[in-house]
Amino acid sequence: MTGWVAVAGLGPGDERLITAEVREALDAATDVVGYAPYVARVAPRDGLVRHPSDNRVELDRASHALDLAAAGRRVVVVSSGDPGVFAMASALFEALQARPDPDAFDIRILPGITAMLAAAARLGAPLGHDFCAINLSDNLKPWELIERRLRLAAQAGFAMAFYNPRSAARPHQFARALEILREEAGPQTLICFARAVTTEAESLSVVTLAEARPDMADMRTVVILGNRDTRRVGRFVYTPRSAR
Amino acid sequence: MTGWVAVAGLGPGDERLITAEVREALDAATDVVGYAPYVARVAPRDGLVRHPSDNRVELDRASHALDLAAAGRRVVVVSSGDPGVFAMASALFEALQARPDPDAFDIRILPGITAMLAAAARLGAPLGHDFCAINLSDNLKPWELIERRLRLAAQAGFAMAFYNPRSAARPHQFARALEILREEAGPQTLICFARAVTTEAESLSVVTLAEARPDMADMRTVVILGNRDTRRVGRFVYTPRSAR
Repeated sequence: MTGWVAVAGLGPGDERLITAEVREALDAATDVVGYAPYVARVAPRDGLVRHPSDNRVELDRASHALDLAAAGRRVVVVSSGDPGVFAMASALFEALQARPDPDAFDIRILPGITAMLAAAARLGAPLGHDFCAINLSDNLKPWELIERRLRLAAQAGFAMAFYNPRSAARPHQFARALEILREEAGPQTLICFARAVTTEAESLSVVTLAEARPDMADMRTVVILGNRDTRRVGRFVYTPRSAR
Repeated sequence: MTGWVAVAGLGPGDERLITAEVREALDAATDVVGYAPYVARVAPRDGLVRHPSDNRVELDRASHALDLAAAGRRVVVVSSGDPGVFAMASALFEALQARPDPDAFDIRILPGITAMLAAAARLGAPLGHDFCAINLSDNLKPWELIERRLRLAAQAGFAMAFYNPRSAARPHQFARALEILREEAGPQTLICFARAVTTEAESLSVVTLAEARPDMADMRTVVILGNRDTRRVGRFVYTPRSAR
């Protein structure tokens, strides 16, 4: 097989956060596959076919990329952020598992700046101690599991980053998550809302859990909860390196 | 104050994983401050003063960077990986907290590709579902807290990334961590050892917890533990997007 698939992270939005490794793969590609808004971030050029697709068709998209590679094409599957964090890399391997000879495919995963780390950098250093990353969407797991994870993560004293905190289809769940976090972590814990980080639409806010309202988040927001030691200094918020 | 401080992530080692944003800051800097092996990754040039320092002097180094900025210098504090993940960003804000006017300083945090995400990309997608990041060093927290976090994280079903898994000063602790993980997550759970990722010295191995030995890790290794659904496909390991 002469074709290949690279699953590449485009970072959070700012073009200066795309790695040289990802740019090289895009320059060498014949095909770009991905969710339409991410494909739109790749400039058109002669010899490059762009294949935008809808949200929630990750497996179809991954299978399409494998088919193209099998036909000799050089394919970049684009994700925003990092492809290994709630993005296309796992979907590609799920599609690969259905193939009779997985090792026949030339596959590379090219890391990118994931949303929570871009958001943390803009806020200060809220993830400067042990932390966890939780996808709050219940598309692919039961909501009860999410509630259980929130409680255990708070009991462990993790700072937390939440992806997909809230959507129109499930407006009440993030309100419930905030309730659980207030119970387990305490109302004075700091929580950060980072929307559209590193783009022109960026907005950042930091409040206590007592002050947090569900409508502070939408699907373009990464939410970062501090641990009990997380604090403000000047316009920044950070979590100290040490813990008691 | 005309000087500034940028805390920048150099990524895991491969020069192609340094962002353009970080390169621009290094090009504009008058001073580079950091742990000697990271400062050595920045090429010398006229007009650039390099200040290498030892390990474990993070607060002194951060305070030095603030002093230089106060004197009008343009300072880049370099970390490997991402500066916000077990690196210099939190130390800088700890030093800033001791200053009478924190908002007088021009400070930016410039994200980078952190070791666990570079390692995950090389391995496949082991962090493709909810996960946590734990620093296994007990320099800055009690070992009992680490044990408690490991147990709760396993009970929550997180995949886990471990930074600083093992050092000559504390050879027995990683063995104890593996024992706890075998108890809580089960002996068939996959565990990945990724050493010196994206450098010429890179080595990767994937075994079950039953097969894992403490000497598979050293201070240049990032260890990634899967969750109960993590599996192999061809030469890769990945965690499915869904959970039961």
